[in-house]
This record gives sequence, C-alpha cells and structure tokens, in this order.
Amino acid sequence: MLRYRAPMTSETVAILGGTGPEGRGLALRFARAGVPVVIGSRDAARAAQIAAELAPGQDLPVSGAANADATRAADIVLVAVPWEAHEPTLRSLEAELSGKLVVDIVNPLEFDEHGPVTIRVDEGSAAEQARALLPGSTVVASFHHVSAKHLLDETHPVDTDVLVCGDDRAAKDRVMALAERIPGVRAVDAGALRLAHILEDWTTALLSINRGYRTNTGTRLTELDPARRRP
Amino acid sequence: MLRYRAPMTSETVAILGGTGPEGRGLALRFARAGVPVVIGSRDAARAAQIAAELAPGQDLPVSGAANADATRAADIVLVAVPWEAHEPTLRSLEAELSGKLVVDIVNPLEFDEHGPVTIRVDEGSAAEQARALLPGSTVVASFHHVSAKHLLDETHPVDTDVLVCGDDRAAKDRVMALAERIPGVRAVDAGALRLAHILEDWTTALLSINRGYRTNTGTRLTELDPARRRP
Repeated sequence: MLRYRAPMTSETVAILGGTGPEGRGLALRFARAGVPVVIGSRDAARAAQIAAELAPGQDLPVSGAANADATRAADIVLVAVPWEAHEPTLRSLEAELSGKLVVDIVNPLEFDEHGPVTIRVDEGSAAEQARALLPGSTVVASFHHVSAKHLLDETHPVDTDVLVCGDDRAAKDRVMALAERIPGVRAVDAGALRLAHILEDWTTALLSINRGYRTNTGTRLTELDPARRRP
Repeated sequence: MLRYRAPMTSETVAILGGTGPEGRGLALRFARAGVPVVIGSRDAARAAQIAAELAPGQDLPVSGAANADATRAADIVLVAVPWEAHEPTLRSLEAELSGKLVVDIVNPLEFDEHGPVTIRVDEGSAAEQARALLPGSTVVASFHHVSAKHLLDETHPVDTDVLVCGDDRAAKDRVMALAERIPGVRAVDAGALRLAHILEDWTTALLSINRGYRTNTGTRLTELDPARRRP
C-alpha cells in the first residue's frame, strides 16, 4: 500500500460514469495523489457509495454525486461512460460542461465471438464526437490505455505511458500534469485531436494482446525524451 | 558495426518497393542475420544497385530484381510500396504472389500542413485490401513501426516490439520468427487481421510524436511475457 499523500492545491476532477472499474481506478489514484475527485453517476447514491468504498477510513478527497452535480463541482471532467452512453450523456450535460476541460477516455469497441473489434465513429472518434456535441468545452483525448486492474491494485506499479491528443496546448498540459500524478505514468503529447481515433483504437489492440497473452499490458514509447518536446 | 553472421538455412524474403528507406533497412538487417533477401522494384537495375550499395564488400545474401522476379524467388514477400502504389502493385502481381506468405507493412497515411493524418481504407486496412486482392495468398500485417533510420544505422540498437496481425497462426509464427532475426526486436501477436488498421494507424501517432519530440520513437508493451501466449 502506498502512503497517503497530503492533499496539494489542485484542480477538482469529476469522472462521469466513474463507478466502473476504470473510473474507480483513476479516482483512487488521483485522490491518493491529493487531487480532489468527484465520482459521477446517473445514480447519485451509487456514486456516493462507490466513493465511500474506495478506501474506507482513509479520508481521501473523493466524493460521489449525480453526473450534473459532479460536473458543476469540477474544473476537469473525465468522460468514462460506456461507448453506448457517450452521446446521450454528453448531450444531456452540454450546459454544465460548457467552459470545462473535458477529457474523453472512451474507447469505441465491442466484443464478438472472435474477440475485441473497433467501432467506427462518424465524427472520426469519440473525442471528436464530444467536440461536436460540446461547442462550449475544450476537449482532450487521453487515459485510454491504463489498466483498470492495475489502477485499483495499489500494490501494483502502473507501468505505462499516457498519450494525449488535443488541439489546445494549455489544455493538454493540464491533462499531462494530471496523468503524471499517478506514480509510474509518463504523459506523452501525441498530437492533434484528429488523431484521437488512433489512441481509442489502440485499446482494442491491447485488449486483443491481453487476451492472447493472458495479461494486462501497457505501452511505453522508446527513445523519447520529454525534455525535447517542441514548445 | 555488428559482426557479420554466417548465413543460416532460412526462407528467402522479397521486399517489394524495397528501394525506399524502410525496405533498405529491413533488407540490411535481415541479410545481416543470414536471411536471403531480394529487393524488388519496378526498376530491376535500380533494385540491383540498391542491393549492391547496402553493405559493399561484405558479401551479404542480398540481391535486387524486378518486383515480379523478386516475388517468384521468395517464400515470404514483404509489401513496402508507398500507399498510392499498394493496389496497382498487388493487382499486377496477383499470379506471382499466389501461394506466398504476403506481409503487408504499408501505412495508409499522408501529411498536410498540420502533420501526419491517417487515410481511411474501404476494406478496413491496407492488409485487408491485400487479402481482397490476393485470394491465393496468405496475408499478415506487420513491421509498421520499425524506424527506417534505426534499421539503416547498425550502430543503433532497434528498441521496439514488432506487432503482427493475421488470421493464420502458422503464417504469423513465420513472420514473428523473421522479425526476431533483427537484434532488439520482440515479436508480439496482436490478433486477427481485422485489427490491422490499428497497427497501420499507430504509425501515424508515432510520426506525430516523432515530430513533437524530435525523435524516432519505438513501442514496447509492458507486462507481457511471450511464454504466456495462448496456444
């Protein structure tokens, strides 16, 4: 178990659909790093219950609320709903999400008898669909490839890069700083939002590899020096 | 400079469009590992010249020929032509490629003023286009992400996994064994051919990252044990 870290001054993060494994895992790791987190759900009581059960008795800065209330409380809103709920959730929260930094972590994919397969999105990607639905928000795509299992097991180091796509440099910087609050994560700027479909689809390849090798794999880029990022 | 390795019994590899940097780099590394290589080109004389210039005076098992002759001489045929030449090249060689193991390494992408961007392929991917065009061949997708610069610089270790997609397990095994003839490469079975678009598009993300960080990055999967691959 990692030691509890004292809360630092930080932006508040909401995680919509945060009661699933990925949302819970990110909530745990962010809260452990002192980032205030509000888990959002359609069901406020369930969100509150999940938040309370994350690390009982440890006084982590995590709470639960209905998606709209979670959004209002936050500076950065992670969208972690299932793909089927992506469009209706964002449509219903357009007003609350206006002015916020929206981080789309959704992977459009499904499973059939042959394994995982990507779903093509008319807008190009889930993140570009979010941008189309949320003209008042800034949208960044990230956190697609972090194993929920590893996030939820604090004895397990997170051994992965977190890639970020977006068209607003300052927004990407905020997301990259947030990602690196998780021990073991290195954030990498992968370019423009029009490339978000590549990050989303990469998850499908990783799930296929996980199935083939009975693991939860991560991705590290080699020969990459963060200090050489272009200004 | 690596020491010259004695040739081993090996399948002969043709590289169509092998006069480009990626083709030359793979030819050099395969030949260095003792794999007989025929560089293919529309222009037989140019193919022969490129082969002769790869490692002058070192007696590597590499030669050059017209694409059709290179194909006839080979057991495994790598398709390394530019995306624009993919369909016409494969159409023109359908007969010669029949019965061969075809390894599609082509990345459908282009550059505009904002950087690299993927090209959507009607068949789903270049590899699936190859499968549609070549009913008599077995098609595997691989080698999309290996830096040509690193392949051509033998003082530089190749620090990357090589992912393989395909629907024929034995064919994938042959390609994975071939990939691992290159020092530093670990081959990973990424699943079915319908996922090949993910490997092809990942190259676009890597090129975007290369541009952003002034590097030639590679991809390593973490927490993956090749011995745990499902039979």
